[in-house]
Amino acid sequence: MIKVGIVGGTGYTGVELLRLLLAHPRVDIALITSRAEAGRPVADLFPSLRGRIELSFSDPDDEALAACDVVFFATPHNVAMRSVPALLAAGARVIDLSADFRIRDAGLWEQWYGEPHLCPELLGEAVYGLPERHRETIRDARLLACPGCYPTAVQLGFMPLLEEGLIDTQTLIANAVSGVSGAGRQAKIDNLLSEVSDSFKAYGVSGHRHLPEIEQGLSAMAAQPVSLTFVPHLAPMIRGIHATLYGALNAAGRAADLQALYEDAYAHEPFVDVLPAGQYPQTRSVRGANTCQLALSVPQNRETVVVTVVEDNLVKGAAGQAIQCMNLMFGEDESAGIALPGLLP
Amino acid sequence: MIKVGIVGGTGYTGVELLRLLLAHPRVDIALITSRAEAGRPVADLFPSLRGRIELSFSDPDDEALAACDVVFFATPHNVAMRSVPALLAAGARVIDLSADFRIRDAGLWEQWYGEPHLCPELLGEAVYGLPERHRETIRDARLLACPGCYPTAVQLGFMPLLEEGLIDTQTLIANAVSGVSGAGRQAKIDNLLSEVSDSFKAYGVSGHRHLPEIEQGLSAMAAQPVSLTFVPHLAPMIRGIHATLYGALNAAGRAADLQALYEDAYAHEPFVDVLPAGQYPQTRSVRGANTCQLALSVPQNRETVVVTVVEDNLVKGAAGQAIQCMNLMFGEDESAGIALPGLLP
Amino acid sequence: MIKVGIVGGTGYTGVELLRLLLAHPRVDIALITSRAEAGRPVADLFPSLRGRIELSFSDPDDEALAACDVVFFATPHNVAMRSVPALLAAGARVIDLSADFRIRDAGLWEQWYGEPHLCPELLGEAVYGLPERHRETIRDARLLACPGCYPTAVQLGFMPLLEEGLIDTQTLIANAVSGVSGAGRQAKIDNLLSEVSDSFKAYGVSGHRHLPEIEQGLSAMAAQPVSLTFVPHLAPMIRGIHATLYGALNAAGRAADLQALYEDAYAHEPFVDVLPAGQYPQTRSVRGANTCQLALSVPQNRETVVVTVVEDNLVKGAAGQAIQCMNLMFGEDESAGIALPGLLP
Amino acid sequence: MIKVGIVGGTGYTGVELLRLLLAHPRVDIALITSRAEAGRPVADLFPSLRGRIELSFSDPDDEALAACDVVFFATPHNVAMRSVPALLAAGARVIDLSADFRIRDAGLWEQWYGEPHLCPELLGEAVYGLPERHRETIRDARLLACPGCYPTAVQLGFMPLLEEGLIDTQTLIANAVSGVSGAGRQAKIDNLLSEVSDSFKAYGVSGHRHLPEIEQGLSAMAAQPVSLTFVPHLAPMIRGIHATLYGALNAAGRAADLQALYEDAYAHEPFVDVLPAGQYPQTRSVRGANTCQLALSVPQNRETVVVTVVEDNLVKGAAGQAIQCMNLMFGEDESAGIALPGLLP
Repeated sequence: MIKVGIVGGTGYTGVELLRLLLAHPRVDIALITSRAEAGRPVADLFPSLRGRIELSFSDPDDEALAACDVVFFATPHNVAMRSVPALLAAGARVIDLSADFRIRDAGLWEQWYGEPHLCPELLGEAVYGLPERHRETIRDARLLACPGCYPTAVQLGFMPLLEEGLIDTQTLIANAVSGVSGAGRQAKIDNLLSEVSDSFKAYGVSGHRHLPEIEQGLSAMAAQPVSLTFVPHLAPMIRGIHATLYGALNAAGRAADLQALYEDAYAHEPFVDVLPAGQYPQTRSVRGANTCQLALSVPQNRETVVVTVVEDNLVKGAAGQAIQCMNLMFGEDESAGIALPGLLP
Repeated sequence: MIKVGIVGGTGYTGVELLRLLLAHPRVDIALITSRAEAGRPVADLFPSLRGRIELSFSDPDDEALAACDVVFFATPHNVAMRSVPALLAAGARVIDLSADFRIRDAGLWEQWYGEPHLCPELLGEAVYGLPERHRETIRDARLLACPGCYPTAVQLGFMPLLEEGLIDTQTLIANAVSGVSGAGRQAKIDNLLSEVSDSFKAYGVSGHRHLPEIEQGLSAMAAQPVSLTFVPHLAPMIRGIHATLYGALNAAGRAADLQALYEDAYAHEPFVDVLPAGQYPQTRSVRGANTCQLALSVPQNRETVVVTVVEDNLVKGAAGQAIQCMNLMFGEDESAGIALPGLLP
Repeated sequence: MIKVGIVGGTGYTGVELLRLLLAHPRVDIALITSRAEAGRPVADLFPSLRGRIELSFSDPDDEALAACDVVFFATPHNVAMRSVPALLAAGARVIDLSADFRIRDAGLWEQWYGEPHLCPELLGEAVYGLPERHRETIRDARLLACPGCYPTAVQLGFMPLLEEGLIDTQTLIANAVSGVSGAGRQAKIDNLLSEVSDSFKAYGVSGHRHLPEIEQGLSAMAAQPVSLTFVPHLAPMIRGIHATLYGALNAAGRAADLQALYEDAYAHEPFVDVLPAGQYPQTRSVRGANTCQLALSVPQNRETVVVTVVEDNLVKGAAGQAIQCMNLMFGEDESAGIALPGLLP
Repeated sequence: MIKVGIVGGTGYTGVELLRLLLAHPRVDIALITSRAEAGRPVADLFPSLRGRIELSFSDPDDEALAACDVVFFATPHNVAMRSVPALLAAGARVIDLSADFRIRDAGLWEQWYGEPHLCPELLGEAVYGLPERHRETIRDARLLACPGCYPTAVQLGFMPLLEEGLIDTQTLIANAVSGVSGAGRQAKIDNLLSEVSDSFKAYGVSGHRHLPEIEQGLSAMAAQPVSLTFVPHLAPMIRGIHATLYGALNAAGRAADLQALYEDAYAHEPFVDVLPAGQYPQTRSVRGANTCQLALSVPQNRETVVVTVVEDNLVKGAAGQAIQCMNLMFGEDESAGIALPGLLP
């Protein structure tokens, strides 16, 4: 059994980790920490888990965490990097669902997150947890940086086009939409049902922290620096990311069979599903599942390719992908605990 | 392995049966029928099942169904009773999720459903699939009648009070609320998002078909005829039943420790969860789960007891309960395939 | 023109007052106060009002308020009673949308609100702003206490039955449902879209502050103390109150023509609409309107009468009713500014 | 008073026309037709209008319609063009909210709508009802073609950029999102709450009928043929259009003060509101209002300009804009009946 510790279990990513890990045949949850809720039974905060988990939240306990095989951080940024060096030194492996180790350039991190990085020496070692691109290095990772929710969808959507050099790299557009759970379980007026229900808006248009992470990943795929216009939006729903990606096809792109390209690229991926031509994904089809569904289109047979991508921001965009990486890191079946279909309707 | 056939798999109950049965370790889905969609891959209609099921819908095929160990009917009323006698004769067992075998009195059935019952001789044999009350007879059932969604919630909520004779049986009130999936996957203007979103209403106030089913069950619990005022409502959500039950406590009821009564009554039930005093259930805590959560209150310490009950109408109110019964009928672990917690948020 | 001041304009009741007063032909909004937002243009906080209002929020200013013809308090309880005596002394009239002057018994107020009342000497003078019952005294009120949202629906629903003595007064039940805007524009996790969307729950079962207000009103109608079981619920929608009221008919009640009783009782009321027999109200039909719609039913012709009532909690349940009272107090057409139909769909 | 007839009043555009016309000081609604609902009181179908309108739906009656000053068609395409020639000949003016007269090229119309146009000789006379571009010709129109909901948002968003020649005309992108009411009041499984709530999807990616209408309008603004990639999406809300527009700035565009350009362009428009730099519009701010709000951004100061635009699809995108045009056609105040702010929250 894999002995698991979770730091920061009171948010939506935390409860989703619990839901999925409880279904995992080879995991033993040893502790789950929360300063604010220490001592409170987990199932008291999340009644959906009543009868499924006996643990209470505990105060952060470095020793107990260090004794785990793997520690998940489901915390805001700037928390994991305070503990990771010691945990690694003690022999635990770390899966960080926050932003602390996603960006390889410490200066860029500081520019977007507004504070100096506390362990830049680990940035080179951290493995970016997108299995569809980094599967082999993930297996050996001590420190895994889980991709953000938007970055997962955008990178999976653009990857085959960029790897094959079929679109212009300087005019990429990602128009992305998220459910409100992406904003976390925080007391903010902006995310009240009365504020966001029956409404739709863009936000962070002038610059969202996922932009440098996405550009870093896309640039690696393209083997050259890319330029992306990334506009996130908020939709009145709980879960789900929908990304609509636009790329200007070059001559090779106009000549290519894009549908075949994507079907081939993802033929052996357990969690990326290319829809048949003419079908388009909807977020509800992956609600609660670790699946990313996507579709290709070249409207009017002109020169712009449109890729539509959906995922559940809490699963393939967070907790599910983290478990997929854990499975790889510990030699388990990659789909263990995350194979079930989503909830529809 | 239990060889399963499903009749009428294109509705919400059908797709929920599929989702749960696919997670069941001892089930093999042999066929799923639909006249309207015959030949179409199931995963084409329900993209959430892509990669999880290879079957296509088939035309109803009596022979293939008769070769199954058990046949589920996820059909409107008045369909199952046309096929059940032949299936039973062929040796298959039947779990009917429709209303055809829920009411033991053929005359009452005809009064509420507007047509004569086609096999009244089977009504006596049919076992009502509420495991918390009929577990032992369910084990041996050839023909199982799954309770309706409202009846499950209302009966589980009132059961201990009525069995112990603690409330007046002539003034029972059940104020119940359902999500829109309870109305089925039918093309009706009334259930468009634009019609029911951001709105709330009562319906069927003058008489809902679940009333005679509920009164039949409650009367058996009370060992005397009860009289219930049952008012169903529609809430702007996909899944979930919330029932608020009101009973006039008699002297014995006022003297009793109701919290202890309920905790004892359901102490060994895997799918009924009595909340601690002072907590109240919400439907999202059981979204996708087979759990019924309930709570007791006697406001202002007066003489009215209030029981609040939640369930997922498609799980404990339909497909999940059907599988719970199947597990009993085939000697499986009662929780097989339906043990996972729900999706929160 | 009526010169209006508003205290506490940053909540949902405040912005609804603004929307309606801006449509009023005889109102001039002189100032609107908010400590937290002082100096900020109102239309900056509420972009729906851009181009419609030039005012900025101002710090509370007793002198400027005292110079108004009428001051609305759209504040939490325990604010208005600090300022009302001075405003009245200065000659302004006051319409309080909070709970400070709704309950005539200072001891009862203290029991439910947990603090002593600061001007109990004004409780006798305060007029309860339910025009359908107190129209004539409202005309002359200096200090008007606007009913709560639930109390408006429950009282209008029970009034004819109680005034005519047709139901038992000791077993009244009000099962009420509110949209989330009733919880106000406050940063609370409990009211995030991710927490309450696609879910339904009861709350305050053991005692809600609207209970004593409702019982006070119903007792006056019945000319005897009544006992009410009041269970509020939260539905996943922005606006709307739906109340389902249950009463045990006495002999006179069973003999009466209840539909005719209600149609007569409300025949001349501009904002109470009794639906034809067999129709039931939905909250969306009154979204944004000052209308209360209701319907009568006696299910199965038994002995329980069911009244279903809808209103918009922010209009007939708050700002609209306040303006209706203002119109009466200042001799305007009772419907001025609040006559328009709601938004459907 | 303007004597108004409405053809096809049972859809969402029809009921919105009624709501707004009832608030218009100079309109008299003479008749409203519906084959399916002939004889039924309008307020019976739409209870929000009870007490506000006495009319019943009537069978289409050419004579009665011809006696109106203006006839609104709130019908599917291919209906208005059967009656318009006779109405015009009889001296009535026509405001068509359907697609029949929006496209000036009969061949293009036939290509997208799949049937020959029945009165192509009127296409030249029809005036396109976008007041911000065609105000003067609208005043004299006999036959007015109201823009579609998406086309209104996209054209208002791109107009200043195209008129000033600041973006590349061959790589325009409009990523647009609509609430479900845009799909009309039709019995379709696809638009059930259980299908579209808590979900998000693109549709019509390969070609939506609004594309040729938008390209026609944008090409006129640019004085050259444009090429647009237009991807519509469905969001789980009732009302609202949100368009996110992307344009590649040319040298002139990069040098221009785009915020000032838009503020100047729309400075005197009563229904287009350019937000201050740094603010972004949300659909709820214009719910029920005739306002279009928009904002400009050039993310990262690169070369792509992003315009975000919101409107209520049933108001500025349909009924409100139709009334704005009617006001111009009949010499009324352009804002009569449509000046009120929307409903927030």
